[in-house]
Amino acid sequence: MRYVVELSLSLIVALDRVSYERAANIVDSLCEVVSGFKVGLPFLLQYGLSSLEKLRSLCSEKMWVADLKLADIGYVMTSIVELLAGKIDAVIAHAFVGYRGALDELKEFSQKLGIKLIVVAAMSHPGSVELYDIVLGGVAKIVERVAPWGIVVPATRPKLISVFRKMFDCQLALLAPGVGVQGARPGDAICAGADYEIVGRLIVNSDNPLETAIRILNEQQRCRKWCEQR
Amino acid sequence: MRYVVELSLSLIVALDRVSYERAANIVDSLCEVVSGFKVGLPFLLQYGLSSLEKLRSLCSEKMWVADLKLADIGYVMTSIVELLAGKIDAVIAHAFVGYRGALDELKEFSQKLGIKLIVVAAMSHPGSVELYDIVLGGVAKIVERVAPWGIVVPATRPKLISVFRKMFDCQLALLAPGVGVQGARPGDAICAGADYEIVGRLIVNSDNPLETAIRILNEQQRCRKWCEQR
Repeated sequence: MRYVVELSLSLIVALDRVSYERAANIVDSLCEVVSGFKVGLPFLLQYGLSSLEKLRSLCSEKMWVADLKLADIGYVMTSIVELLAGKIDAVIAHAFVGYRGALDELKEFSQKLGIKLIVVAAMSHPGSVELYDIVLGGVAKIVERVAPWGIVVPATRPKLISVFRKMFDCQLALLAPGVGVQGARPGDAICAGADYEIVGRLIVNSDNPLETAIRILNEQQRCRKWCEQR
Repeated sequence: MRYVVELSLSLIVALDRVSYERAANIVDSLCEVVSGFKVGLPFLLQYGLSSLEKLRSLCSEKMWVADLKLADIGYVMTSIVELLAGKIDAVIAHAFVGYRGALDELKEFSQKLGIKLIVVAAMSHPGSVELYDIVLGGVAKIVERVAPWGIVVPATRPKLISVFRKMFDCQLALLAPGVGVQGARPGDAICAGADYEIVGRLIVNSDNPLETAIRILNEQQRCRKWCEQR
């Protein structure tokens, strides 16, 4: 079966709370149409790093992101990334741990290993306004200093995506989770300036993950055209 | 061999970057003299959750803390804690992610499973002044709202320990990492008001971990007496 996908691939599939077998099926059937896969800590703790290697071998040409939301001192974060060497293309860490003795060490170490660093700049849940948003200016400064490969800004907050896009132009990739169950519609974040939309449960719990992914890609494309016309 | 330990046990040993065999030896020989063990993500990713169960069976009467520095939305954090049920006594999460849709769900869920929640209130590395410290008042409010079993405040910052101790009296346990390699001397944090000092590399990399642990306990005791005389 072949699908004609005349689309920019802007979709990353999040594998969090899913069985290994289900994840393997999804990776196998979606490999051609997605930009990559994001594997969360629930999956890694349950199935181990070896399962990540097996999973990745099913679609090694796409980007694999370890979503560990690292938030520790440099020594601990680099110890973790060392274990991921050769198994992953990118790793996600939090901005709020700061630069010195934390993200500076992580950036240098992951760069040596050829692993892209992605920094969380904002979150999607209600509690993110309690502290994260209050220090948004500080977060932006840390992102600027770290100069990571990419940042995470939720799809549920398109205005914030636009702010970060204007701030950093195309110097970094902008990844937007929160599409589907968390409330954002496919294409909204792309329209606001994101490079990738991250979709988890909407695809993972779908009866037909490939059909759902294609539908999302089409909606993204439709949005993109509409945005360009504005 | 028996040691006469007429001490309050205020020592938690951190197992991060250590082989399983070494960790098992340390747990076995230190079980009698420590309050518990803290297992970090580097160890859990390398050896898996089954190794945690094996390790814990060597000293199941003491407290076992999973130091995952959880910092995600409630859905992801509870998915992770679900995997730890029956394997761990306490789990560490960041205050930074806020209450609503994050620590509220984690608190409720971990309580149901009989797992103690410990919240990071401050960190020890230089970068912690860049954002974490700026919102210290907000962090304290979140801690108050969550009412966790305990909080983490670094031993390298005794003044901050005193502030949190005064703020929360004995309503919560105060755990202080950063003793040894990170710079604090054994007993300093106890003196400032901590319940437990967490020691990693100083013990884990020692030629004789038991001797080192006993020495630390004695220094804590000496400090405690001196503090009480003030």
